[in-house]
Amino acid sequence: MATSSAPGDRRAPIGVFDSGVGGLTVLRALREQLPAESLLYLGDTARLPYGTKSAGTVVRYAEQAARVLVERGVKLLVIACNTASAVALEHLSEVFWPLPVIGVVEPGAEAACAASRTGEILVIATEGTVRGGAYERAIQARRADARVVQTACPLFVALAEEGWVRGAIAEAIAHRYLDGVLRERPEADCLVLGCTHFPVLRAAISAAVGPRLTLVDSAETTARVVAAQLERRGLLHPDPAAGRCSFLATDAPARFARVGAVFTGEALAAELTAEAVELVDL
Amino acid sequence: MATSSAPGDRRAPIGVFDSGVGGLTVLRALREQLPAESLLYLGDTARLPYGTKSAGTVVRYAEQAARVLVERGVKLLVIACNTASAVALEHLSEVFWPLPVIGVVEPGAEAACAASRTGEILVIATEGTVRGGAYERAIQARRADARVVQTACPLFVALAEEGWVRGAIAEAIAHRYLDGVLRERPEADCLVLGCTHFPVLRAAISAAVGPRLTLVDSAETTARVVAAQLERRGLLHPDPAAGRCSFLATDAPARFARVGAVFTGEALAAELTAEAVELVDL
Repeated sequence: MATSSAPGDRRAPIGVFDSGVGGLTVLRALREQLPAESLLYLGDTARLPYGTKSAGTVVRYAEQAARVLVERGVKLLVIACNTASAVALEHLSEVFWPLPVIGVVEPGAEAACAASRTGEILVIATEGTVRGGAYERAIQARRADARVVQTACPLFVALAEEGWVRGAIAEAIAHRYLDGVLRERPEADCLVLGCTHFPVLRAAISAAVGPRLTLVDSAETTARVVAAQLERRGLLHPDPAAGRCSFLATDAPARFARVGAVFTGEALAAELTAEAVELVDL
Repeated sequence: MATSSAPGDRRAPIGVFDSGVGGLTVLRALREQLPAESLLYLGDTARLPYGTKSAGTVVRYAEQAARVLVERGVKLLVIACNTASAVALEHLSEVFWPLPVIGVVEPGAEAACAASRTGEILVIATEGTVRGGAYERAIQARRADARVVQTACPLFVALAEEGWVRGAIAEAIAHRYLDGVLRERPEADCLVLGCTHFPVLRAAISAAVGPRLTLVDSAETTARVVAAQLERRGLLHPDPAAGRCSFLATDAPARFARVGAVFTGEALAAELTAEAVELVDL
């Protein structure tokens, strides 16, 4: 399929997309690890969330979102959404070949395998990611002895979007989702934050699960994988001062900027002005 | 615009649509008040929620959803979603004229004006409904002395969808949203549940706000308006035993049926088998 991406252009931006603001946690990690790179972020806010939708619908939405970035000439594409990574990575890699496409599930699985001693790994994610079982497969491909238990925590998404990321309510919700599985799995020593919304709730989740579990999120690991890919392909930006962030949102760009500030941290919040773009439903 | 609706056919079903399952609270009230009528319900689960999206997007989605029902020959259309009622009622009435189109905001405003003695009325709703200010306008059109205070409570939607409708977490969230406005508005005596998801949280909201406020939801009033319209037009179904409910969902019909059972109550839950339909994005 013809694309206008720029897979060989070192000065082209990295494209990053998510259903909404959650992927900004990945953008933040990319910015910290690759300050020379320009980042073009798309939030598909017209159709968020992806996490409660069927695989077929998510694949279609993800392709439409990715196409906007590809048409703007990105050199690499990051699927900064666990649900879309879980169901659409292969499809997007094929459709946009030879553009490198990187999802967040494989890096998250890598980080979990490195962090766990016992091999008993808990994954919290959206309903869509849990249903697809991608984390379980990715972890067991790396570590055949691993026992993976997945729990869908859809309320965490709404909580993060509302900015209620600390305090009694967030902790009570974390307890309700996790106390049962923690009792049932006394060997578990690692908890994967398998949704890009969840890192902003890290403190509340950590307080609820206690020190026994190492919390793993895929943002940093994904940024490391992106850095390694760019280096291997000779695609690192040559100018260390060139990094810019630009934002696109498929709906309500003002809300995107307001809610997004919770996810980017202060340093990036000032740059959060989103341009509205239309997606064509295929 | 050509339609295949059946505005003059007494035996045709009533069409009801919502972004997802919330409108099932309206369906339930219709079923109770109009047991002879057949109801055809569409949940636009591929694009839910509408409440965080812009007015333009909601109008477009609402027209697409309504069109599916119109093409299946409904005799009257109910917009069982406050967000869509607030921004799309006029547009849909025009596009599908002469089909009668009834939203939930006007009936809700009517019920609030009847319930309030002091004229100080609180409205809780989604971000989209609050931003549009439709409740405030509808209430003040009926009662010029009314003082309306709106509060967006987006987490209630996720809470209702998760089925966590009672208990400490639901009440804590209700307190966090409402304690401030209750202190600031000591004269308020009426709370409008301005989102069709919220009636399932009635017990928790009621516990949080105490006996001072009368809780008003638009489901029953909407059903009464529908009954009155059908009667006035000579469109009540002639056969008292004819009522059936059928369900369409634009995505994930199994999830629709599971989550929907929270909203319909037990009597209807057994009938909740949804057929998947595709929407064409205009």
